[in-house]
Amino acid sequence: MEKNRLEAFSDGVIAIIITIMVLELKVPHGIEWNDLMSLVPVFFSYVMSFLYVGVYWNNHHHMLQATKRISGRILWANMHLLFWLSLVPFVTGWMGENNFATIPVVLYGMVLLMAAIAYYILARSLAHHEKNTELANALGRDWKAVISLLFYICAIPLAFIHTSLSILLYIIVFVVWFVPDIRVEKIINSYKK
Amino acid sequence: MEKNRLEAFSDGVIAIIITIMVLELKVPHGIEWNDLMSLVPVFFSYVMSFLYVGVYWNNHHHMLQATKRISGRILWANMHLLFWLSLVPFVTGWMGENNFATIPVVLYGMVLLMAAIAYYILARSLAHHEKNTELANALGRDWKAVISLLFYICAIPLAFIHTSLSILLYIIVFVVWFVPDIRVEKIINSYKK
Amino acid sequence: MEKNRLEAFSDGVIAIIITIMVLELKVPHGIEWNDLMSLVPVFFSYVMSFLYVGVYWNNHHHMLQATKRISGRILWANMHLLFWLSLVPFVTGWMGENNFATIPVVLYGMVLLMAAIAYYILARSLAHHEKNTELANALGRDWKAVISLLFYICAIPLAFIHTSLSILLYIIVFVVWFVPDIRVEKIINSYKK
Amino acid sequence: MEKNRLEAFSDGVIAIIITIMVLELKVPHGIEWNDLMSLVPVFFSYVMSFLYVGVYWNNHHHMLQATKRISGRILWANMHLLFWLSLVPFVTGWMGENNFATIPVVLYGMVLLMAAIAYYILARSLAHHEKNTELANALGRDWKAVISLLFYICAIPLAFIHTSLSILLYIIVFVVWFVPDIRVEKIINSYKK
Repeated sequence: MEKNRLEAFSDGVIAIIITIMVLELKVPHGIEWNDLMSLVPVFFSYVMSFLYVGVYWNNHHHMLQATKRISGRILWANMHLLFWLSLVPFVTGWMGENNFATIPVVLYGMVLLMAAIAYYILARSLAHHEKNTELANALGRDWKAVISLLFYICAIPLAFIHTSLSILLYIIVFVVWFVPDIRVEKIINSYKK
Repeated sequence: MEKNRLEAFSDGVIAIIITIMVLELKVPHGIEWNDLMSLVPVFFSYVMSFLYVGVYWNNHHHMLQATKRISGRILWANMHLLFWLSLVPFVTGWMGENNFATIPVVLYGMVLLMAAIAYYILARSLAHHEKNTELANALGRDWKAVISLLFYICAIPLAFIHTSLSILLYIIVFVVWFVPDIRVEKIINSYKK
Repeated sequence: MEKNRLEAFSDGVIAIIITIMVLELKVPHGIEWNDLMSLVPVFFSYVMSFLYVGVYWNNHHHMLQATKRISGRILWANMHLLFWLSLVPFVTGWMGENNFATIPVVLYGMVLLMAAIAYYILARSLAHHEKNTELANALGRDWKAVISLLFYICAIPLAFIHTSLSILLYIIVFVVWFVPDIRVEKIINSYKK
Repeated sequence: MEKNRLEAFSDGVIAIIITIMVLELKVPHGIEWNDLMSLVPVFFSYVMSFLYVGVYWNNHHHMLQATKRISGRILWANMHLLFWLSLVPFVTGWMGENNFATIPVVLYGMVLLMAAIAYYILARSLAHHEKNTELANALGRDWKAVISLLFYICAIPLAFIHTSLSILLYIIVFVVWFVPDIRVEKIINSYKK
């Protein structure tokens, strides 16, 4: 099975997810700057989710580039990841419209955690399928994935103390992933040689 | 006529269908776990339809991979399938928002039945066009398609007895398709040799 | 300039147009068959527009297949066509929700007419750019495009007598285009030889 | 890293942005021409944004065509551009629904300005990455980008005098970009030789 259509379908779903989130930014009735003020938390949660989904697309892109062929198992592992990402607009809207209240921040973290687990399963399935020892080793030792999971697991209960602690941890996870993953790039480059 | 654009267009439509369904999950006004409770049936119907559309995309992918060229007839058979799939968000929303009431469950089954018939017509058109005896044989004997149609035809009247019977049958059809179709994969592999 | 991205972008826009139209089919509040009755005209207008947009995608596909390269002029002629098609969901919703009232049927016809003119301009630009005498001849003599324009120009005033006359003409135009355009296919085939 | 998926993802996002703007054209309740009158400013702002997003897609297309490979930095510069473009439907809706009131026109200009800056950063990153002196020179001297930025910076305060002055400047920027960028095309052609 070729990977092109999997990439195209995933691109389509992620592009729609990232774009329909903006529909939560509902046009205000007034025409003054003050009328935009109520949208500030919605806007901030939109920016956060835009960056998060961007990181997922970026990593998805990298991971599949190091892959040659896909199986039915990988296809469904990918569908699983897309499922959790598809819930991001909903939790983003709930969190933003309620000014980062406790339960919405917890649910946001839970969806991020599930997406991170789904991503990890997909990475493992790819490494297994490829019998690609190099990729398997690199991904297996990937401290980023492990740190992300740990941070989400901490961030969720911390929301009951103060939601800003959770948000801070979510932002740290983003920053960790934002820095390009040098090891995976090295493997891709070594393939090309 | 080349199949690339048909695949790209179908990917686009299916990606949008699977993603706009999440818009039915409307952000609740409260900020407690209880406020999410009313969304549980909507969420469950969303999960079901996500999996169903995922199966269709998966099978569509497989089926076209065993194909080399397409005709105007295939193009419209594909459009016919996309039409019925495009109604899935509507029936999913109606079923979920009404807590799996009888008539919405019946309508859901009818749309699934029409999509299954459209899929069968597309498979037949492809097999005919390809004059591909192997694919024709494999698809012709495909017990999955026959079982799906029978199950839908049973599930629709059963909703008048109890809707959970229909839902059970819809889930069984999903499980049947979820298991990869070994015969089609074999043919694809034999082509490549 | 290569045509792949133009095709991909057009596929994306047309796929979204055809799919967001279903959002006009708003989930009814009741759970009986009667509650669906009010949606019948909306559904019928949805089917009509789905078929129309399908015909445009199909013809767009054919036309660009006979093309090798595109210019800035063609790119904007394509954007012009996509603009008028992007208004189809709006006019479909207005016509369906108002049970095919006169002015909405007139506006629907006007948008179809503008899309047909935009399609004609795109076809001419492609023929001119290619200095493709065969394609230019085939498209120049295309009775389909001329008939479509004439039918739309007739259908618009006829709505003031009875809207069913306009709808009938819109359906006839669809049927005319639904039949595959044998001449363009012949040219494509002759290229491949 | 290959550029195909970056193009496909950007195409998807831009196609969705350009198409969901039409959802701001809400179906009116009445069935007379007068009922459409209230939509005229919304329609005009839709046309403006459609053309603007079209220009961005067109230029994005050109710019990436002159590029061979992309880095993580370029990927995020592209994401940054898509972020500002994703806000266009929101500001278009606000401006159109409020009949081009001062603050909405100012915000519209601010989003256009940020998108223009993001585009400039992306162009610089591409030129830097490519160590492409020709492209760097051409883009570096690009009077269009400089003029656009200057015009936006003027248009924003001018809205406080009269919004039509701002709109006029926005239209002039569109016209400047609409004319094909002959220098970039020359470089592309020279590569092909």
